[in-house]
Amino acid sequence: MDVMAHSTFEAGRCILGKLPHGKDLLRAVEDFCVQNSIQTGVFSVIGSVKSVTLGSCDQNQQVYVTWKKEEQLEIVNCAGNVSLRDGKVAVHAHAMLADINGQTIGGHIFSETIVFAGEIYLQELLGKPLEREYDHITGLPLWKI
Amino acid sequence: MDVMAHSTFEAGRCILGKLPHGKDLLRAVEDFCVQNSIQTGVFSVIGSVKSVTLGSCDQNQQVYVTWKKEEQLEIVNCAGNVSLRDGKVAVHAHAMLADINGQTIGGHIFSETIVFAGEIYLQELLGKPLEREYDHITGLPLWKI
Amino acid sequence: MDVMAHSTFEAGRCILGKLPHGKDLLRAVEDFCVQNSIQTGVFSVIGSVKSVTLGSCDQNQQVYVTWKKEEQLEIVNCAGNVSLRDGKVAVHAHAMLADINGQTIGGHIFSETIVFAGEIYLQELLGKPLEREYDHITGLPLWKI
Repeated sequence: MDVMAHSTFEAGRCILGKLPHGKDLLRAVEDFCVQNSIQTGVFSVIGSVKSVTLGSCDQNQQVYVTWKKEEQLEIVNCAGNVSLRDGKVAVHAHAMLADINGQTIGGHIFSETIVFAGEIYLQELLGKPLEREYDHITGLPLWKI
Repeated sequence: MDVMAHSTFEAGRCILGKLPHGKDLLRAVEDFCVQNSIQTGVFSVIGSVKSVTLGSCDQNQQVYVTWKKEEQLEIVNCAGNVSLRDGKVAVHAHAMLADINGQTIGGHIFSETIVFAGEIYLQELLGKPLEREYDHITGLPLWKI
Repeated sequence: MDVMAHSTFEAGRCILGKLPHGKDLLRAVEDFCVQNSIQTGVFSVIGSVKSVTLGSCDQNQQVYVTWKKEEQLEIVNCAGNVSLRDGKVAVHAHAMLADINGQTIGGHIFSETIVFAGEIYLQELLGKPLEREYDHITGLPLWKI
């Protein structure tokens, strides 16, 4: 059995927040973490957006293919985490969205993704922060653990 | 940088539960919270339903468009929270479902949504409860924070 | 009001982990729990896979219909829990995936599902472990609570 690389934390603050209307989702989470000295955490968002930028990792080319959708969509779920990259707060999140007919799209979420309304649950994690670094196998900025 | 409106809580009970077969999903969660004096919390459900009622917020008309699907579906994920509205427990949840071929639909979940089987993880949050109130910008009952 | 069957736990370790590249997702989580003496918990994964095996419960026949997709896909969200079955660690998870165009599929996740990259948040739960047992109404291995 391979051992999964991991890091153990203690639970910090449990936060419920209201994402700001008309602002970028990732930026709002990132700014909040910077302002509140949160370096590590996990979060979940439900709500809706005015537009979204999603992407998918092209595993062969090792690049993200992104696209933007200018449409009102429900955030059926957005799951993400907070860690550090080059010493700065980095938010990584994936989201699943549904249109007015319930049809769904999903992927890695990018800026700009404009919030209509959003409710976030953020669990702060206390301990040695995780740093992201370039991973040569996947081409992704993965945790150095 | 705008500050995200938020409220901080302490972790309360961690609950794993079995949603009752043949009952309404939202009602089951709501009843459980009332019976166990849970006013604030977050939860996640996986399982399956016999039927589902989903909706999407029409941001321009500021109304929810809802539809019902009488079909057996997997609950790929249902993410929600518990807070108060008019002093009573109010459950807000979004869900993503998949049919027997893996095709997905999603949105804001409404009653009636009949559980076939469901496993819930509910994290109680302790602190000053959040109250929902009508928000004039979105037309939605958002948290007063 | 029916009372939802449930069990209450205390929060244990909070773990962030990097799922091993090229390995089976469920097996990686299961092995980790065995190695770290985790008998009860909940988790969430975001990342991507090289292939996935999904399934859906046929509620009438009481069997799982499964299918495999050999394609690079984003794990938009994978939500699961850890409990015991026949005294051994059993991982139950559902996943929503998106292809390079954002098109989504979802369902109950099975082995083999090969990880490209994956970030897991695992919340250990401390208390009397939950055992799964055959449920005659649904034909599923549900929690004995």
